[in-house]
Amino acid sequence: MSKNIIKPSILAGFMELTPPDQILFNRMMDTIRENYERFGFLPIDTPVIEKAEILLAKGGGETEKQIYRFQKGDTDLALRFDLTVPLARYVAQHYSELTFPFRRYHIGKVYRGEKAQRGRFREFYQCDIDIIGNGKLDIINDAEIPSVIYSTFKDLGFDEFTIKINNRKVLKGFFQYLGIEDSQEVLRSIDKLEKIGQEGVIKELKEQGLEEKVIDEIINFINIKGSNLEIIERLKALNINNEIFNMGVEELELVNRYVGLFGVPEENFSIDLTIARGLDYYTGTVYETFLDNYPDIGSICSGGRYDDLAGFYTKQKLPGVGISIGLTRLFYQLTEAKLIKSEDQSLIKVIIIPMGDYLEKSVETASILRKNGINTQVYLEKAKVGKKFTFADKLGIPYVIIIGEEEVEKNFYTLRDMKTGEQELLTLEEVLNILK
Amino acid sequence: MSKNIIKPSILAGFMELTPPDQILFNRMMDTIRENYERFGFLPIDTPVIEKAEILLAKGGGETEKQIYRFQKGDTDLALRFDLTVPLARYVAQHYSELTFPFRRYHIGKVYRGEKAQRGRFREFYQCDIDIIGNGKLDIINDAEIPSVIYSTFKDLGFDEFTIKINNRKVLKGFFQYLGIEDSQEVLRSIDKLEKIGQEGVIKELKEQGLEEKVIDEIINFINIKGSNLEIIERLKALNINNEIFNMGVEELELVNRYVGLFGVPEENFSIDLTIARGLDYYTGTVYETFLDNYPDIGSICSGGRYDDLAGFYTKQKLPGVGISIGLTRLFYQLTEAKLIKSEDQSLIKVIIIPMGDYLEKSVETASILRKNGINTQVYLEKAKVGKKFTFADKLGIPYVIIIGEEEVEKNFYTLRDMKTGEQELLTLEEVLNILK
Repeated sequence: MSKNIIKPSILAGFMELTPPDQILFNRMMDTIRENYERFGFLPIDTPVIEKAEILLAKGGGETEKQIYRFQKGDTDLALRFDLTVPLARYVAQHYSELTFPFRRYHIGKVYRGEKAQRGRFREFYQCDIDIIGNGKLDIINDAEIPSVIYSTFKDLGFDEFTIKINNRKVLKGFFQYLGIEDSQEVLRSIDKLEKIGQEGVIKELKEQGLEEKVIDEIINFINIKGSNLEIIERLKALNINNEIFNMGVEELELVNRYVGLFGVPEENFSIDLTIARGLDYYTGTVYETFLDNYPDIGSICSGGRYDDLAGFYTKQKLPGVGISIGLTRLFYQLTEAKLIKSEDQSLIKVIIIPMGDYLEKSVETASILRKNGINTQVYLEKAKVGKKFTFADKLGIPYVIIIGEEEVEKNFYTLRDMKTGEQELLTLEEVLNILK
Repeated sequence: MSKNIIKPSILAGFMELTPPDQILFNRMMDTIRENYERFGFLPIDTPVIEKAEILLAKGGGETEKQIYRFQKGDTDLALRFDLTVPLARYVAQHYSELTFPFRRYHIGKVYRGEKAQRGRFREFYQCDIDIIGNGKLDIINDAEIPSVIYSTFKDLGFDEFTIKINNRKVLKGFFQYLGIEDSQEVLRSIDKLEKIGQEGVIKELKEQGLEEKVIDEIINFINIKGSNLEIIERLKALNINNEIFNMGVEELELVNRYVGLFGVPEENFSIDLTIARGLDYYTGTVYETFLDNYPDIGSICSGGRYDDLAGFYTKQKLPGVGISIGLTRLFYQLTEAKLIKSEDQSLIKVIIIPMGDYLEKSVETASILRKNGINTQVYLEKAKVGKKFTFADKLGIPYVIIIGEEEVEKNFYTLRDMKTGEQELLTLEEVLNILK
C-alpha cells in the first residue's frame, strides 16, 4: 500500500527549535518568569483567539493589516497581536475581582502576519509586566521597573547592558515651549535618531516645516549628555517655564534617585533624552535596553508609563507602567551573535545502561533515582553497548550508570562521568550524593 | 470627549482565570513538566498555526468540522487541534537531527471549534509525552509510561486513582478468532461500556449483525475480572489459537511485570479488558486513568501504543507510545468538584509596608530580599496604613515587614505573620532566615 507523502514543513516566519535549543529557550523563559515573580508580579493567561472587535478597538493601519483575522460560523475572530490589548480587556472585564495596584506578568505567544524576513517572526513570545493603578499610580513604580529589567538580564547572564530612560513629558513640554503643535510627529523623528542619524532627523524636521532656529534648539536639547545628575541639572538650567516640562524633569529626577535604591548600578542605567518610543500611548517615563557591545541588536526590552490603559473597554481611569521582552526575537539574535549555545544543556542528569539481561535492576534503580528528584533515563532498547553509549553522548547526558553482572552480584553501581571518562564502583548512597 | 465603550468579554468556550486560580493552574502545569523531565523527556514547542494540508493530512469528519481554518494571503492555514499531528510532522521534518528513541514532552494550547457547552473548551492545554522509536520500539517502554502517570498524579496531590491498561492486540486477536471482520466497530461499542452499560453494548453488537453466541463470548470476555495476574492467567486459559491474541497477552504480561519495577503500586494499576480507546491508530497497549472516587470525571490521562506515527509525512516507520493530560478540562473539573481551591497560594512571600516617609529604607530592603531570592513586593502608593494591610490581606501574602521611624532608628524590622497576627522586631539576618 503506497500513499502520498506530504513534505513536512512549517510556515515561513515561525520559529521551531530542536530539543537542545528548546531547552535553552525554556531556561531563558523560566529565568524571566522567576524574576517577574520575585518582584511580586502575578501570572495571567488570556485566550490567543479573541473577538476581532475587541482586539481592533483601537484600529490603526499597521495592526489591521498584520492581524490574523477570520470567521468561524458568524463570529469575527482574531489572534492577539500583543499582550497589551488583552491586558486592557482583562483588567476592564475583571475589574471588580482584582486588587489594585494590579501587578501582572504574562508570557505568551502573539501573532503578526508581517512580511517574512530574516529575524522577523509571525509567531513570537512576549514576556510582559505591567503595574496598573486604579485611578492613579505613584511615580515611584516607574523607578522599580528598571530594577526588574536589571535583575532579569543579570540572571540571563548579561553584564554589559544599559537601561536607557527618558520622560515624554520633558519632550512634550519642551516642544510646547518651542511652539510646536504636532509634537507626536517630532517625537517620531527623534525616535529614529539611531537609525537615520542627526542629519536625517534635521531633514525630517525641516520637512515638517520647522524653523531653523527651532530645529537648532531641538538638536541642542537632544545633545544634552553627561551623568544622570548632570543631565537633570542641565535640564533645570534651561529655565523653561512650562508646567509639563517641569513635571517631567521632576519625575525623571525622582525616578533616577529611586532606581539606585532599587538596586540598579549606575553603569547599567542612564538618562537619554533621545529615547522617545514610537507608540503614542506613552505619557511619561519610557524605557529601552541595549546590549553595550551589540548595539545592532536594538532594544531588547522596552516600555513605559501610560495614562489610560483600557479607555476602549471601561470608563475607569487605569494608568500603568510596564515593559515587554520579545523573547523569540531576542533568542534568535543572541543565537546569531553566538552569545548563547546549546552545549552542556542536558535536562537529563543520568542514563542507566543495562548490560546483557540486567534490565530489572536498571529499571528499579531508575525508579529510586527519580523518587530522589533526579532526572533519569534508562536505555530500554536491545542494542550493542557501543550504541547505548553513543546515545548518551549524543544527548549530552553527563552521567552514565552501568548495571551488569558484577554490579548486580555485589549490589554496586558503576558511575561514569561522561566528561572525564572516569568510572567508579559506588554504593547507591554514593551515587545519590553525587547526582543530587 | 466621550467615546464608545466596547463591553470587555471573551469568546464562549475559552477559559480565563483570575490570578489566584492562575497560580494554581500554573503550579499544576509545573508539576507535570517536572515529572516529564524527571523521566527523561525533552521539550519541544511547535507553531500554533500550521499549513492546513499538514494538519488535515489524515482528514476525517469531526476534525475537519472543528478545526479553525482560514486564509492569509494565498495560504491555507489552520490552528493545531492536538499535539500529535504536530509531533508527527516535527519528527518527520527533523528526523536527521533527532536521537532515537526520541522522548519528547509538549505542553501547549490546542484549538477545537466544538459546540460550546459546560466543561468543554475551544482552547485548552494538552500535556503530552511520547517515546518514538526509529523502526522499532521495545515493549518495555509501554511499562514505563504508567510510572510517569503515577508519579505525576502523586505529585499533583492525588492518592486514589487507577491507571487502567489493556492491549488492543488481545482484543483484535480475540475478534479474529471469533470470525468478526470489522473489529474496529466492535471495539468502538466496547469502549462505550461505561457510558451505555452492558445492555447497550449488546444492543449495538446485535445491530452490527453478530450472532448471539458470538455476543455471549464477547460479553464473557469483557467480564474477565480479578487481580492483574489472574486476568492474565484467565486469558491464557482461554487457549485461543491466534497469533495476534497471544502476542497481546504476552505484551500485557510483560508490561504488568515491569510496571511494578518502575515503581507503580498494585493498587494504582489494573488490567481492564474493556478499555479499548476510540482512536483507530492505537495498535497495542492502551491507557486510561480514573480518580477512584470521582468516576464521573472520566479518564484524566489517556494514551497508548501506535505502529505508525508519521506515515503521512515520511516513509520512515516510527512506532511510539504516549499519553496526554488535558489540563484545562482537568482543572475545570477539579475546581467544580471542589478538589482544589486557591487558598494560601500566594506567589508573593512578603510585602514591605512603609510607614509615613520611610520609603527609601523599604525600597532598599526589598532589593536585599529579592537578591536573596525572596518574592517581595513594596507597597509604593500613598495610602493610609489600614489600606496597605488590606492590600496584603486580599492578596493572601503571608508576611508583612513594617518599616517606620522606630525600625529605621534601631535598624530593625518588624515582621508580622499575617496568619497568626504575631509581630516581632528582628534583625535583617533573622528576617532572611524566616523568609528563606
